[in-house]
Amino acid sequence: MYSFFKWISRISSNQSQKNKRLLSAVKTIVGKKPINLEIYELATKHASVARTSKSGFRESNERLEYLGDAVLGAVIAEYLFKKYPFKDEGFLTEIRSRIVNRESLNDLGRKIGLDVLIEYDANRKNSLSHRSIHGDTLEALVGAVYLDRGFKFCKKFIIKKLIIPYYDLDQIIKNNPNNKSLIIEWAQKENKEVRFEVVEIKNKRHFKEFTVQVFVDDEPVGIGYGTSKKKAEQDAAQKSCEFLDL
Amino acid sequence: MYSFFKWISRISSNQSQKNKRLLSAVKTIVGKKPINLEIYELATKHASVARTSKSGFRESNERLEYLGDAVLGAVIAEYLFKKYPFKDEGFLTEIRSRIVNRESLNDLGRKIGLDVLIEYDANRKNSLSHRSIHGDTLEALVGAVYLDRGFKFCKKFIIKKLIIPYYDLDQIIKNNPNNKSLIIEWAQKENKEVRFEVVEIKNKRHFKEFTVQVFVDDEPVGIGYGTSKKKAEQDAAQKSCEFLDL
Repeated sequence: MYSFFKWISRISSNQSQKNKRLLSAVKTIVGKKPINLEIYELATKHASVARTSKSGFRESNERLEYLGDAVLGAVIAEYLFKKYPFKDEGFLTEIRSRIVNRESLNDLGRKIGLDVLIEYDANRKNSLSHRSIHGDTLEALVGAVYLDRGFKFCKKFIIKKLIIPYYDLDQIIKNNPNNKSLIIEWAQKENKEVRFEVVEIKNKRHFKEFTVQVFVDDEPVGIGYGTSKKKAEQDAAQKSCEFLDL
Repeated sequence: MYSFFKWISRISSNQSQKNKRLLSAVKTIVGKKPINLEIYELATKHASVARTSKSGFRESNERLEYLGDAVLGAVIAEYLFKKYPFKDEGFLTEIRSRIVNRESLNDLGRKIGLDVLIEYDANRKNSLSHRSIHGDTLEALVGAVYLDRGFKFCKKFIIKKLIIPYYDLDQIIKNNPNNKSLIIEWAQKENKEVRFEVVEIKNKRHFKEFTVQVFVDDEPVGIGYGTSKKKAEQDAAQKSCEFLDL
């Protein structure tokens, strides 16, 4: 009997350790202590470790992700609307989609340290739904902040803690995903041979870093870096466009 | 000289008449007088009558439409999130898209009376961009309300003045756009011949009303109504599914 109580108390002490860690992480990431810690707990719970509620509903962070995605979209829409008063809605829509695309949110989720908070089933680590786990959790966190502290605070959190420190808007605007096709079209017209080559892949702790070199008629032009082949290619394409004055 | 002043004063009196009309319309639709009437003026200005600002930028309601679309999405996301605590994100996303799809927003824009407020070039009335003019203006209006009165008020406006009075959520949930394919699949399996027939098109003042009848082996099953062939077909499909117990 004594050891049973010890076991129970160890479990509850583990839980309270975990809660303390989450509380302090939320405070660091969001800038204020959670009012309702439970929402943040749910935000970090991947579908692979969903819990079944009393009503039989399987609870994970997917509903919060749906909510956070919508709130993030609205806040960034307004931010760009006000920052670029003389740009049309096509420009605003394009820049917003470059900010909130899956890859970019995944990067951001990792950068703010969500990887140590996410609860998931490690056995299913390589499954499809894990590819975007950091971005999904980031959206769920935004949903949690919105429910916990309201729109005004959540908006400030998104702009001051996510957009301003982690996004270089000038760079994003310059970094046209069509740069690669620009170069290919130019090369066809000029009758030159162009190729994008991955010249290095470094294994960092939580991600890979790709290096891509663009060659025109075997001459190196621009070199680019990124956490995926595609991103490194885009970076290399942009630098090559600058170099070639396209 | 005298007649010049008379002309100027007639123009400004026309403008003030127009402003009064807009002010009273916004008050009726939104529930409160505008603080900044100019934003609402812009919200009703279709791209076909865009004005060129001092900086050379062509101003119409398209930027506000982009903003309003995002705010509307976030508010409805939260509304459904809270209304259906035990439904998963797939359900919530689907129902939201049924509420904010182009056709549904167009209908709503007409119902709240935006047609008399929209400024557009009537010569280009039948062009592609006019097809969704009521829905687009509705989104722009939401953007204007958000900028004029903030998130909290705008959220109340969307829920109390748009969603609750104009959307029957039970009906929307039942009205599965896949009902038509359900019937077709059933008919194939049962070796029956099924057809959807437009049996009447009524010309209403601002829109058409379609009546569609579903026949199974030449026997009439469900009958449906809508402002487009597609909507009437969906309505007829749903009623037929109920009748056939599919």
